[in-house]
Amino acid sequence: MQYFTDTDMGLDLAQVNRSVESAFADHGRGLVQMPPKVYITLPDGDFRTMPAYLPSLSIAGVKIVNVHPKNSRWGLPTVMALTIILDLATGQPVAIINATRLTDMRTGAAGAVAAKHLSPKKEIVLGVIGTGRQAEAQVAAISRELNIRELRVWGRNPDHVRKFADRFMEYPCMAVSAEKACDCDLLVTTTPSTTPIIRSEWIHDGTHINAIGADAPGKEELDPTLLRRAQVFVDDPAQAIHSGEVNVPISRGLYRADEIAGTLGEVVIGKKRRSGPDAITIFDSTGLAIQDLAIAKIAMQHGRQIELPFP
Amino acid sequence: MQYFTDTDMGLDLAQVNRSVESAFADHGRGLVQMPPKVYITLPDGDFRTMPAYLPSLSIAGVKIVNVHPKNSRWGLPTVMALTIILDLATGQPVAIINATRLTDMRTGAAGAVAAKHLSPKKEIVLGVIGTGRQAEAQVAAISRELNIRELRVWGRNPDHVRKFADRFMEYPCMAVSAEKACDCDLLVTTTPSTTPIIRSEWIHDGTHINAIGADAPGKEELDPTLLRRAQVFVDDPAQAIHSGEVNVPISRGLYRADEIAGTLGEVVIGKKRRSGPDAITIFDSTGLAIQDLAIAKIAMQHGRQIELPFP
Repeated sequence: MQYFTDTDMGLDLAQVNRSVESAFADHGRGLVQMPPKVYITLPDGDFRTMPAYLPSLSIAGVKIVNVHPKNSRWGLPTVMALTIILDLATGQPVAIINATRLTDMRTGAAGAVAAKHLSPKKEIVLGVIGTGRQAEAQVAAISRELNIRELRVWGRNPDHVRKFADRFMEYPCMAVSAEKACDCDLLVTTTPSTTPIIRSEWIHDGTHINAIGADAPGKEELDPTLLRRAQVFVDDPAQAIHSGEVNVPISRGLYRADEIAGTLGEVVIGKKRRSGPDAITIFDSTGLAIQDLAIAKIAMQHGRQIELPFP
Repeated sequence: MQYFTDTDMGLDLAQVNRSVESAFADHGRGLVQMPPKVYITLPDGDFRTMPAYLPSLSIAGVKIVNVHPKNSRWGLPTVMALTIILDLATGQPVAIINATRLTDMRTGAAGAVAAKHLSPKKEIVLGVIGTGRQAEAQVAAISRELNIRELRVWGRNPDHVRKFADRFMEYPCMAVSAEKACDCDLLVTTTPSTTPIIRSEWIHDGTHINAIGADAPGKEELDPTLLRRAQVFVDDPAQAIHSGEVNVPISRGLYRADEIAGTLGEVVIGKKRRSGPDAITIFDSTGLAIQDLAIAKIAMQHGRQIELPFP
């Protein structure tokens, strides 16, 4: 059994996008085993257990990931993760992977897959709402699929916006208002907001939106009116209804689960698509265990390995 | 983060029994978080993900355990396990424990806790059906709670019976028929049988039975008639109905879920008890995540540790 760490160093993001895309394709075809995430509540946060089996990539395992918003007090990340990989033939645990950074990257990859299949343009102005680790992961992953002509970034903290811009010196990068950031071809929202930040009237026809921030009950970033103007694709219907961008509008009766246009997996296999170049499309991301397995498959070819005695 | 191996070496079984007893007490009081086990099916077996949080022992984590019946072909155990422990305050994974042997031991400890609270005698003739690792674990753990005057053992394979007897030289140990093994004070059944081995008429009044073998749909060791003569206590009702000794009789209409007398946790806290010295009592064990956390708490004070970089 091997312990893998620093596996994010030098990962080929295009390769990660292809692996995650292939996982979504299998999900669209109904070929994966992926029970709902299981939540355990701890005093200052929670942890989620996410088992899955992806036959086409020959990989099975479990991600364990916490969410502890007050962790910065201790100099620790809010979100930390381990992925345990089991041998398919014998069930023996064969790898334990430090998956904290990989969790950011596999969410970025899902956004890139959505952008590839749902953006009507290949050359884009990319609007970014929020300047944290996930905002960076989205831009980095999307840049492997589409040509970014310009970044328009909004964040609450000007220092963070500046640091974000420094990270992407290869693109013209403008610090703008949230409204101006929405004047783009592809919008990425990555905040932990519990009240809508993005007004419907700010979004013009033909925009694709990756709605990433909402991943727990009560979180939402988009004006619910916008959902009704758009085709909403989710990663997994049960998870999205429980904790995705649609969770609050559905619970308040402002949106119905049966209005969801389909899943990203169905888009990847061509079963569902954007209705035309002027449609507004939204990818509502909550994060799937199969994304973690897809990136684990590649991560195990990288980084440092420590041999552990087992069984 | 530490990796712990060989933690079973030199474990104090009486201490393990107390820790597991305390976990069952919390379960009886409704103080634990323990969602149902989640199953993933692999080509030649399955694996189960078992998260839990035990506030009174200040421990939370996840056991991941496989069942692959053909593993002996590869010289590997059928069942292998890892337990991951998270820090309660920050959610950080702090320990990964090789839990293969601990899984046997925590099941033994549950049997010992049941024996302590449900056996009407402190000096016992112990009948043992089956001679595998779990039969050994039951005898070793029970010996810390009750005085074993004699062992009466039945197994299909005479060589295995002999080896089993050699393991417990401190007791008079007789190789007997299954029927003779049932002429005892406390009976332990530990086979993977899918047809009843133990006939109701072999069991006399006042016997306590640990029914350990049935842990999956379709498995059963006891004549269903015996369930109706007895008070049946389960570790967890949902798990027992799904995969415990009662699963086949319930699915065939030979026993009803509402006939279950209670849980072992309720027995430990004194809320339920054997109805009198002549009652037949049965403990139907399927294995709980809180048992794994209870033994992990002690195991982390033993064995070899390897420091791993995290986060």
